[in-house]
Amino acid sequence: MKMGATKVSGSDDYLFHPQLLKNLDWDSVQNILNPAITNENTGEPWLLVRPLHITDYDKGYLQILSQLTTVGNVSKTEFERQFWNMYKAGGYYLTVIEDTRSNKIIGASSLITEFKFVHNCGLRARLEDVVVNNTYRGKQLGKLIVLTVSLLAKKLGCYKMSLDCKDPLIPFYKSIGYKLEPGNANFMTIRYEDSPKPS
Amino acid sequence: MKMGATKVSGSDDYLFHPQLLKNLDWDSVQNILNPAITNENTGEPWLLVRPLHITDYDKGYLQILSQLTTVGNVSKTEFERQFWNMYKAGGYYLTVIEDTRSNKIIGASSLITEFKFVHNCGLRARLEDVVVNNTYRGKQLGKLIVLTVSLLAKKLGCYKMSLDCKDPLIPFYKSIGYKLEPGNANFMTIRYEDSPKPS
Ligand SMILES: CC(C)(COP(=O)(O)OP(=O)(O)OC[C@H]1O[C@@H](n2cnc3c(N)ncnc32)[C@H](O)[C@@H]1OP(=O)(O)O)[C@@H](O)C(=O)NCCC(=O)NCCS
Ligand SMILES: CC(C)(COP(=O)(O)OP(=O)(O)OC[C@H]1O[C@@H](n2cnc3c(N)ncnc32)[C@H](O)[C@@H]1OP(=O)(O)O)[C@@H](O)C(=O)NCCC(=O)NCCS
Repeated sequence: MKMGATKVSGSDDYLFHPQLLKNLDWDSVQNILNPAITNENTGEPWLLVRPLHITDYDKGYLQILSQLTTVGNVSKTEFERQFWNMYKAGGYYLTVIEDTRSNKIIGASSLITEFKFVHNCGLRARLEDVVVNNTYRGKQLGKLIVLTVSLLAKKLGCYKMSLDCKDPLIPFYKSIGYKLEPGNANFMTIRYEDSPKPS
Repeated sequence: MKMGATKVSGSDDYLFHPQLLKNLDWDSVQNILNPAITNENTGEPWLLVRPLHITDYDKGYLQILSQLTTVGNVSKTEFERQFWNMYKAGGYYLTVIEDTRSNKIIGASSLITEFKFVHNCGLRARLEDVVVNNTYRGKQLGKLIVLTVSLLAKKLGCYKMSLDCKDPLIPFYKSIGYKLEPGNANFMTIRYEDSPKPS
């Protein structure tokens, strides 16, 4: 945080360094977005793609996630604790789109990396928690935010990136370059009870 | 490491604390294994289920993984660096079966946990890199090592555990309790170039 009369957020209040989102290899995914927007030029000057910030609790980050799945009653303190858990562990590249006119988060997408011994002690990437606010859908913002974190995974040197999804979203992810590999496209789950906190 | 004339490994040389594998809730998965072995009573006194240890490079851990996928030429130094990367990040519960007669790793299975904001700032679990040495297969050791880390995930309070797999392994995971949820069982991938190191 910079010193001064007013609180100015610095890169240390982001979950990861904003510089990592600069100069992604958009040339490698030409023709997917039309018009050809990028995370650094979203087409609308008020739409900002950036890492999750510690103040995003107040900008509606959890409300956005609740369009995707159960969030529950998470206090600001709990949000901040989990933010720092992720920060300390490393490998959490939670990325958002902010509408700077309303100071609201209107889209989100997470890249999570995992250290492996296989693939030459490689780094594996996962895509998680993709959502665009319902009033902003159909404007390429879903593709934009997924491509942004996918290109970040490539930049970080990951050997593969994967996701799991419901049937209706297969065409969406196919259009961005994700594949159902024949014979190797199964996702299986065991669900335990959710945490007993009120939600 | 304990002080003394001979080097005795302590819990600080394990990727996670061995105590975590004690008293798992085997009652909740009765009738899956027959005879009813557990990680603390494997049926064969020489088969030991334990966390990955820093010395497992010399016990054939990477050779076991190479029965699963490409490992490449990983030096002992690189192995140790990645071990400590995982240790520092936390959330890496890589578990092995050792045959203490030969001091060789003969089975492996990884639980990886992920901090979430959804589900009340929940903890999510993933199953990765399951393998049993080909000369030891068909003796329930695959089920044993997967159930061990699945019960560990439950103990850690994870709200769900998931995996991706090839078609022929679906019956194996179904027999342990994993489900293909209708309409939500798709696993999609983008592959980037593997690291350019010789393999
Ligand atoms: C998925 C999601 C992120 C897409 O965001 P978006 O900004 O609308 O996406 P874009 O404008 O970049 O692209 C939309 C494209 O994906 C398709 N698409 C998106 N969601 C879809 C869905 N649920 N079913 C079918 N197609 C879908 C659109 O038809 C469109 O295709 P087109 O480019 O060929 O016309 C957004 O719909 C969302 O947040 N959904 C809620 C969460 C969710 O996953 N719901 C579905 C559960 S199965
Ligand atoms: C999968 C694996 C861990 C199972 O280990 P294991 O010790 O033999 O497993 P268990 O003895 O506990 O259980 C074996 C059960 O799973 C089934 N099974 C295991 N691997 C299977 C396979 N590849 N195809 C079909 N069934 C399989 C067996 O038929 C058996 O079923 P049963 O109990 O009803 O008789 C082991 O086969 C392995 O390491 N495979 C190599 C890696 C891999 O995943 N290969 C398959 C790629 S699709």
